[in-house]
Amino acid sequence: MSELLSKAEELDAADPLAELRHRFVLDDTVYLDGNSLGALPAVVPDRIADVVRRQWGELRIRSWEESGWWTAPERIGDRIAPLVGAAPGRIVVGDSTSVNVFKALVAAVRMARARAAGGTARDEIVVDATTFPTDGYIARSAARMTGCTLRPVTPAEVPGALTDRTAVVLLNHVDYRTGRLHDLPGLTAAVHGAGAYAVWDLCHSAGALPVGLDEHGVDLAVGCTYKYLNGGPGSPAYLYVRQDLQPRFDSPLPGWNSHAEPFGMSPDYTPAAGAPRARVGTPDILSMLALEAALDVWDGVPVEAVRTKSLALTDFFLECVTAYVPDGRVESLTPAAHAERGSQVALRCTSADAGDVMRRLVASGVVGDFRRPDVLRFGFAPLYVGFGDTERAARVLAEVLVT
Amino acid sequence: MSELLSKAEELDAADPLAELRHRFVLDDTVYLDGNSLGALPAVVPDRIADVVRRQWGELRIRSWEESGWWTAPERIGDRIAPLVGAAPGRIVVGDSTSVNVFKALVAAVRMARARAAGGTARDEIVVDATTFPTDGYIARSAARMTGCTLRPVTPAEVPGALTDRTAVVLLNHVDYRTGRLHDLPGLTAAVHGAGAYAVWDLCHSAGALPVGLDEHGVDLAVGCTYKYLNGGPGSPAYLYVRQDLQPRFDSPLPGWNSHAEPFGMSPDYTPAAGAPRARVGTPDILSMLALEAALDVWDGVPVEAVRTKSLALTDFFLECVTAYVPDGRVESLTPAAHAERGSQVALRCTSADAGDVMRRLVASGVVGDFRRPDVLRFGFAPLYVGFGDTERAARVLAEVLVT
Repeated sequence: MSELLSKAEELDAADPLAELRHRFVLDDTVYLDGNSLGALPAVVPDRIADVVRRQWGELRIRSWEESGWWTAPERIGDRIAPLVGAAPGRIVVGDSTSVNVFKALVAAVRMARARAAGGTARDEIVVDATTFPTDGYIARSAARMTGCTLRPVTPAEVPGALTDRTAVVLLNHVDYRTGRLHDLPGLTAAVHGAGAYAVWDLCHSAGALPVGLDEHGVDLAVGCTYKYLNGGPGSPAYLYVRQDLQPRFDSPLPGWNSHAEPFGMSPDYTPAAGAPRARVGTPDILSMLALEAALDVWDGVPVEAVRTKSLALTDFFLECVTAYVPDGRVESLTPAAHAERGSQVALRCTSADAGDVMRRLVASGVVGDFRRPDVLRFGFAPLYVGFGDTERAARVLAEVLVT
Repeated sequence: MSELLSKAEELDAADPLAELRHRFVLDDTVYLDGNSLGALPAVVPDRIADVVRRQWGELRIRSWEESGWWTAPERIGDRIAPLVGAAPGRIVVGDSTSVNVFKALVAAVRMARARAAGGTARDEIVVDATTFPTDGYIARSAARMTGCTLRPVTPAEVPGALTDRTAVVLLNHVDYRTGRLHDLPGLTAAVHGAGAYAVWDLCHSAGALPVGLDEHGVDLAVGCTYKYLNGGPGSPAYLYVRQDLQPRFDSPLPGWNSHAEPFGMSPDYTPAAGAPRARVGTPDILSMLALEAALDVWDGVPVEAVRTKSLALTDFFLECVTAYVPDGRVESLTPAAHAERGSQVALRCTSADAGDVMRRLVASGVVGDFRRPDVLRFGFAPLYVGFGDTERAARVLAEVLVT
């Protein structure tokens, strides 16, 4: 047995989170794509069957009240809250990440302008130029619709780009491509120092590492729930609004679910208090209650322990890749420094077609994903990925790369 | 046996759609709230179990391609299309009705302005003043964000309210409260005559009566899928874009799913061709595939036959109410003329508290709903409501009202 295989066994044996794997439906595939679609939590199928057969099929319309459908967006928001360092009452679940980015950016521009009334115009939206594209597209639309200009800069350039015209800055906590973790506390403080608002996209960090939204005074944040939160394909996204900003949150999508009295059917709009004012229309109950069930896997799991294991996994993967893969075949785009690393490793393929490599990996039972033109992404979901999986992934990668 | 009971039996025996009831999970409740949440189609539970256990649990990320998740929004749109008189390629499913109203109105204002370039400013959005409130709230936001004014008028006032400043008119095909059916062909033609665009909300008509979107040249239309289309609680809404307008559809929510090459991950936005350019973010697959399964109940069912039965049901209900309920206890808000009637009957309670009446009806096995301050709503979903149900509902209503 190789040294690294023995080490993997020791690490698995000592892993305090190892048993959590049984909370998921898994097979002998090494699944390193939980940063794209989380694995199925074992409690979900029966829970969804109950939602469909009993709540919808038998109770029907009564379930809006009796099965708690109506309050699901804020109730599930409160379940996500401890994972991202938020107190209850700050998060609502619903809509897609793209729609929530739009709500957050427009609301932030409006707040910035209200605060700057009489002072300098706040007419610029700064956006991470390396962002997952949808954030950039939506930021451009938000800028167009609020009369702002859009300024794409790298996260490192943000502090130098801030001016008294900056209304809001949209940043990614972890870069979807490279896995780089950005400095949320420092950048948020810099944005605040310039009198602007910070909106963070947590898609690639929530559920993998501590975020500390309340602690760091983040203004607004959005995230999806189908990656490390395992909510299922296209499960609804969420929006965080800092408590003291909630009364000023002025939504561009003021649907009836955000009304103070939604069943009053009034032609006049009065926004609800608190996070529910970020709701829009009727929530997609099946997807939403699958997410609620999926969050059960976090019972008793401190996110700090998840972060510790995540770093151990990615460290070990890099160690195995270095040991197994001949020099010059791949190059890590993911920072070596823990403070700059999320929960994935991105390898640039320098000697082979990355799309072909990923197809062969998948055929060999190691599932990651491919990002054009030349990147192999491996996501490490600490709740169900082990060190044995990690060693195997690196070993199979080496086999694929040398044949 | 009373005469009306005999008549109900005859009508049920002669009903060509009677057998469709077996395509749903029903009990001995008379369910007249299908205009709020459609009953559960019998095929849905097994289909969703497969989506959860096999597509998500086993295939995981591969299902985006192998299980057809990625193309679901347009594929399911094409399933809805024949029910609303649209050819394939006109409809995409996704997001809530509110979000789709926003997309449609902003896109319509942009089209109106592009067409009017150099001519009169198109700076007014006309909205049905009696609309379900969310449409009005969203229309106000769309007006605010496009620099338009909002002009609420009743549908009857629309032709007189149109000017060369009208950019777009948002109308309801069937009024959610009274059940009144509006003249879609006539109003659309009037709007076009004024050089404006017509956006129709089909929430209370699709699945209950023919709509004829293509035939009548409707520009844009939105609708929910959880009423007469039985898609399940909060199932995704849809957006119709007339074919020749698709190249000009300029979305305010240009998420990555609407990109011509979504996996190109380009920082530059190039909209997809056709209806998919109205997509936004990652679709909520569980809710969406429940809807897809639910649409199976329409196999071989012509919407014209549904309309015929719908009118027969509401006619018969009004006949039974007149016969059973003492004069002066209720008053129908729903037009008697077939051309002005949707698939519900709204009764104003003139002698008792309507909320209390509805609670007692529900306790007696007849489920409708209550709309403040004094309206009892009874929705007739022709696929699963029979004439015996209808007679019983009126009889129980009479019992509740006189005790």
